[in-house]
Amino acid sequence: MPHWKATLAYDGTSYYGWQVQPGRSTVQGTLAQALAHLTGEHTLPQGSGRTDTGVHALAQVATFSLSTNIPTANLHRALNRALPASIRILDLTEAPPEFHARHNALRKTYEYRILPRTTELETICPPFLAPYVWAYPRFLDLSLLNEAAAQVIGTHDFTSFAAVNPDQATRQAQHEAELAAPHETQATPTATNTRTIYSSNWTQDPGPSGLLRYRVTGSGFLHHMVRNLVGTFVEIGSGRLPANSIPTILQAQNRSAAGPTAPAHGLFLYEVEY
Amino acid sequence: MPHWKATLAYDGTSYYGWQVQPGRSTVQGTLAQALAHLTGEHTLPQGSGRTDTGVHALAQVATFSLSTNIPTANLHRALNRALPASIRILDLTEAPPEFHARHNALRKTYEYRILPRTTELETICPPFLAPYVWAYPRFLDLSLLNEAAAQVIGTHDFTSFAAVNPDQATRQAQHEAELAAPHETQATPTATNTRTIYSSNWTQDPGPSGLLRYRVTGSGFLHHMVRNLVGTFVEIGSGRLPANSIPTILQAQNRSAAGPTAPAHGLFLYEVEY
Repeated sequence: MPHWKATLAYDGTSYYGWQVQPGRSTVQGTLAQALAHLTGEHTLPQGSGRTDTGVHALAQVATFSLSTNIPTANLHRALNRALPASIRILDLTEAPPEFHARHNALRKTYEYRILPRTTELETICPPFLAPYVWAYPRFLDLSLLNEAAAQVIGTHDFTSFAAVNPDQATRQAQHEAELAAPHETQATPTATNTRTIYSSNWTQDPGPSGLLRYRVTGSGFLHHMVRNLVGTFVEIGSGRLPANSIPTILQAQNRSAAGPTAPAHGLFLYEVEY
Repeated sequence: MPHWKATLAYDGTSYYGWQVQPGRSTVQGTLAQALAHLTGEHTLPQGSGRTDTGVHALAQVATFSLSTNIPTANLHRALNRALPASIRILDLTEAPPEFHARHNALRKTYEYRILPRTTELETICPPFLAPYVWAYPRFLDLSLLNEAAAQVIGTHDFTSFAAVNPDQATRQAQHEAELAAPHETQATPTATNTRTIYSSNWTQDPGPSGLLRYRVTGSGFLHHMVRNLVGTFVEIGSGRLPANSIPTILQAQNRSAAGPTAPAHGLFLYEVEY
């Protein structure tokens, strides 16, 4: 039974996130439909993790098996023809049967994009950028953003940055339990809110746009964690919270200690490493 | 009665073009709604010209009058708040009452974007680019494209590159009659298919994408003219028509002599000069 690893990019604007949901258009569901359309087989591709409604991916990874034996190059081409232009398979390779996009993920990287205010005039977000950035109405200080971002590097309990919705928490716990596979590199049991962040920093594009990019690599991320980190960093970058707030917020282990949740549409799943 | 000149950008993906149509979302209609919402006044902004369904604008120009006297900066800010993120007023200035976005336009520039095949492998169009380029499945020779593009510079009858749909032709004639204003710089009567092209050339972005941009500046453009020119240029750039075909096609004054119509979503209204 051939098994494949697909690397895919998607524009999350018109999807209710990655995970299949009855009666709603999702990336996982659309991919399953394309596979069924091509092969007549009903298989649900397993992603490296979920992305929420409106979140984009530059390189999501998904695995799936088919009993049909199709040459990889043909399957790749046919899938891209069957899929809408908002989802592209960038790379498709055969994988060993035991390879699993989620269980085997070692590190993940996300990128969050912000278009900050750069002049005394109100920032006008170009329509072509609007679905892919958070147009932030205040000035942001890059060095303050980076001072804050550096404070999450290392192994911490990220409860203060995790979604508190009980449903989400339950789903998260289930998700984490599923993640507790031998390949996980985390030193602590995964059904906790402890994660390791390997790198966390902001850069600013040259040129008039001044687009800010936050890139964070970690062993794994809690639900809404990147968006809650960004929502807190901008409180610091705009001067409304002191730059040394992060350790106190982490220690609180309480969502209300941190800043608001940044909008979904600025977030990109950037890379999954195995 | 204050009169304004607005420069606006829009992502045409989700609009049935510029021109107001009953029961359909259009850019002109959405702008009129925003003005009505803010002021209670019903005014229909006049654009520099129509754009078709799916066509984008980097700098469309529209004029409108209101009896309400609102400071320009306030109106600008309020309009951008009332409009969807897919339409942005980039600039708003008071204009003399006789200034008309269409009648006073002297030159217009369009840009058409193509993502050509660049390797032996099938080109994969990134989902974030798909609504803004024509993903063209063949290799294109930049020098052949430019050889062809240069042949339309000057004053020509562009009947071979004009939409042939009778409704469109009628609308075009009406539109052209409306255009026959004293400010027009064209030497010939405007209710003909004669236009002057001032510049016409292709460039290729550096880097792996190899994005091709066709930029054309003219006194005015017939309906579908830029898309029909591009559809013909790519026949030449891909080697399926000889590079010296353009003069023969122009002389034919017959739409069937030229190539197919390039898709709407690669086209941007780039600049309107007064």
